[in-house]
Amino acid sequence: MKIKGVSYRTIWPDPTDVGLVRIIDQRALPHRLLIEEIRSAEQMAGAIREMHVRGAPLIGAAAAWGMVLAVTTCSADALRDWRSRLNEAGDLLKSTRPTAVNLAWAVGRMLAIGRACESPEAARSRLREEALRICDDDVAACAAIGRHGFPLIRAISNRKGGAPVNILTHCNAGWLACVDHGTATAPVYAAHEAGIAVHVWVDETRPRNQGAKLTAWELGEHGVPHTLVPDNAGGHLMQHGLVDLCLVGADRVTRLGDAANKIGTYLKALAAADNRVPFYVAMPASTIDWSVRDGVREIPIESRAEDEVRHVEGLCADGELRSVRICPEETHAANYGFDVTPARLITGLITERGICPASEEGLLALFPPTC
Amino acid sequence: MKIKGVSYRTIWPDPTDVGLVRIIDQRALPHRLLIEEIRSAEQMAGAIREMHVRGAPLIGAAAAWGMVLAVTTCSADALRDWRSRLNEAGDLLKSTRPTAVNLAWAVGRMLAIGRACESPEAARSRLREEALRICDDDVAACAAIGRHGFPLIRAISNRKGGAPVNILTHCNAGWLACVDHGTATAPVYAAHEAGIAVHVWVDETRPRNQGAKLTAWELGEHGVPHTLVPDNAGGHLMQHGLVDLCLVGADRVTRLGDAANKIGTYLKALAAADNRVPFYVAMPASTIDWSVRDGVREIPIESRAEDEVRHVEGLCADGELRSVRICPEETHAANYGFDVTPARLITGLITERGICPASEEGLLALFPPTC
Repeated sequence: MKIKGVSYRTIWPDPTDVGLVRIIDQRALPHRLLIEEIRSAEQMAGAIREMHVRGAPLIGAAAAWGMVLAVTTCSADALRDWRSRLNEAGDLLKSTRPTAVNLAWAVGRMLAIGRACESPEAARSRLREEALRICDDDVAACAAIGRHGFPLIRAISNRKGGAPVNILTHCNAGWLACVDHGTATAPVYAAHEAGIAVHVWVDETRPRNQGAKLTAWELGEHGVPHTLVPDNAGGHLMQHGLVDLCLVGADRVTRLGDAANKIGTYLKALAAADNRVPFYVAMPASTIDWSVRDGVREIPIESRAEDEVRHVEGLCADGELRSVRICPEETHAANYGFDVTPARLITGLITERGICPASEEGLLALFPPTC
Repeated sequence: MKIKGVSYRTIWPDPTDVGLVRIIDQRALPHRLLIEEIRSAEQMAGAIREMHVRGAPLIGAAAAWGMVLAVTTCSADALRDWRSRLNEAGDLLKSTRPTAVNLAWAVGRMLAIGRACESPEAARSRLREEALRICDDDVAACAAIGRHGFPLIRAISNRKGGAPVNILTHCNAGWLACVDHGTATAPVYAAHEAGIAVHVWVDETRPRNQGAKLTAWELGEHGVPHTLVPDNAGGHLMQHGLVDLCLVGADRVTRLGDAANKIGTYLKALAAADNRVPFYVAMPASTIDWSVRDGVREIPIESRAEDEVRHVEGLCADGELRSVRICPEETHAANYGFDVTPARLITGLITERGICPASEEGLLALFPPTC
């Protein structure tokens, strides 16, 4: 998507230097656009752990590039035993964030290819091709999610006689969470580009404020009308008919259709159900974890540093980025990164192959097991 | 309650200067304890509007003292027509915050008394007595709410064999929201003082962070174990059995038992219902609006400045209080101050006369109409 008129992806390899991958360091957004140069698997693991990049599809792509760098910028010694080197890098990359399944999915895919190669040179070349493919596949999947979700918005627009369709989203499942287009935002961008009037309620998304910082920014850059609201507001908005549709992303969807997503998503799904507002989860197939059934019981939920809750970062009037503490010095905080929305609260899953019910039957109909 | 070992109320008249009332300016908490001197009805109205004081019971008490000041520190000219002066001050004070019914209740009570007086001197004296009574009644009501709510906590403690009772609260319905004790916190303080192990999950409460700033501070000062959580966390906590009881305050309770409270309360009530966690609203009778039935349709919801959402205030590492902007400069925000929790989601109302179902029958049984 575009930033000040220039097209970007969130991650891209240098066209000439095979040992260099660039990412947008999202921690400085919306106040500054920082492009970061990544030159090793270890540096990429740090960038994922510290959330320079975040969002389930993007951290899958970032991990894939980390695996490429593992056999591209390592010492000649390490390269001789490239299979061990890949195993180590894979373990490191997988350890950075526990909830999103895309990370394990991308690492597993890269490992299988790298291990099967006959020489380090072949591994280097084949892994690079695969990382490019993972990125291009993600872009294609998000574009397809946009096409499949678009008719939902068009139908509401028609029903409302062309009045703006009010869409509530939580966190950032936009292009910044993917390689391009986004998951939850893809249908919104598709509708906006088709000339349908849309308006997005952007949940702030404490503690890290990805809604306020990233979703508001990317919608603004693209010209999509939107309003920032505290995470507390969605219930009130839905009670008063101010939300036509909820659209969120997911970090992991179980075989039965439960969806782990940014903490607070479950609360919005409850409000949607209570007010009969359709609640859709948009995600590519790489987000499905076929090995897990009951999301609430089985999906590990990441606990992050308590200072993310105790402090808020932003721009001061003097132009400096600063962190302010919002509670007493002695106060402790808990920081669960995700919650799980049970399938019963999800109207449908929007995938690159179409929309299906949030159920095992629904998912299997779109994604039948390959023999 | 105590601050660093010294007992305070949130509002108190000077013992010798009848034209002086002191309040805790809550905007600087938890970082600084500022005592503010109020000398006129207009200054009190500003303090309520700008939320130096907040919380439904406290703004009722503050409005009462504003009415006292209206006829105590005005000009001799204005005093001659004290009934007009009281009408004007009452209109001004009522206009400061639209949602809490205590404001209109306290102003109405003061107006009736002041109008019935035969002389400005009598009005001055009678209104002062009445303001003192409103404060003392509020303290007594909160203490009674504590006594009535206490057995709920004790029963859970017994069922858990003495393990800490986990209580989730939203916003600040503590002693800082009242004259003393608090509403939602009164049973918690009572249990803590009786030696029952309690632990409070404190919702941050964006956008103004009254949970992080005020509830965490007052619980900490009193030694009650607690943990700060983002407003998004409550659903996850309840899904995982980490909440035994929800206790919140209210700004207005309708005849049918619907409760307007800080924005986001409704979302927690939905999660409580979905996970069979008891959800109680604690409030004095002055919070009941007998003239309103359907809270969602009839209670006016205050819209506040969008900069409260776009900015967060807190303490920087250098010891300065600063405001940081968390979103792009161009981003607009909506800031609804309250939402309404329908009676069907409320397990019970804890009042100064006991606990009743959130229904017309329940309320009328405790508060029968006086003839």
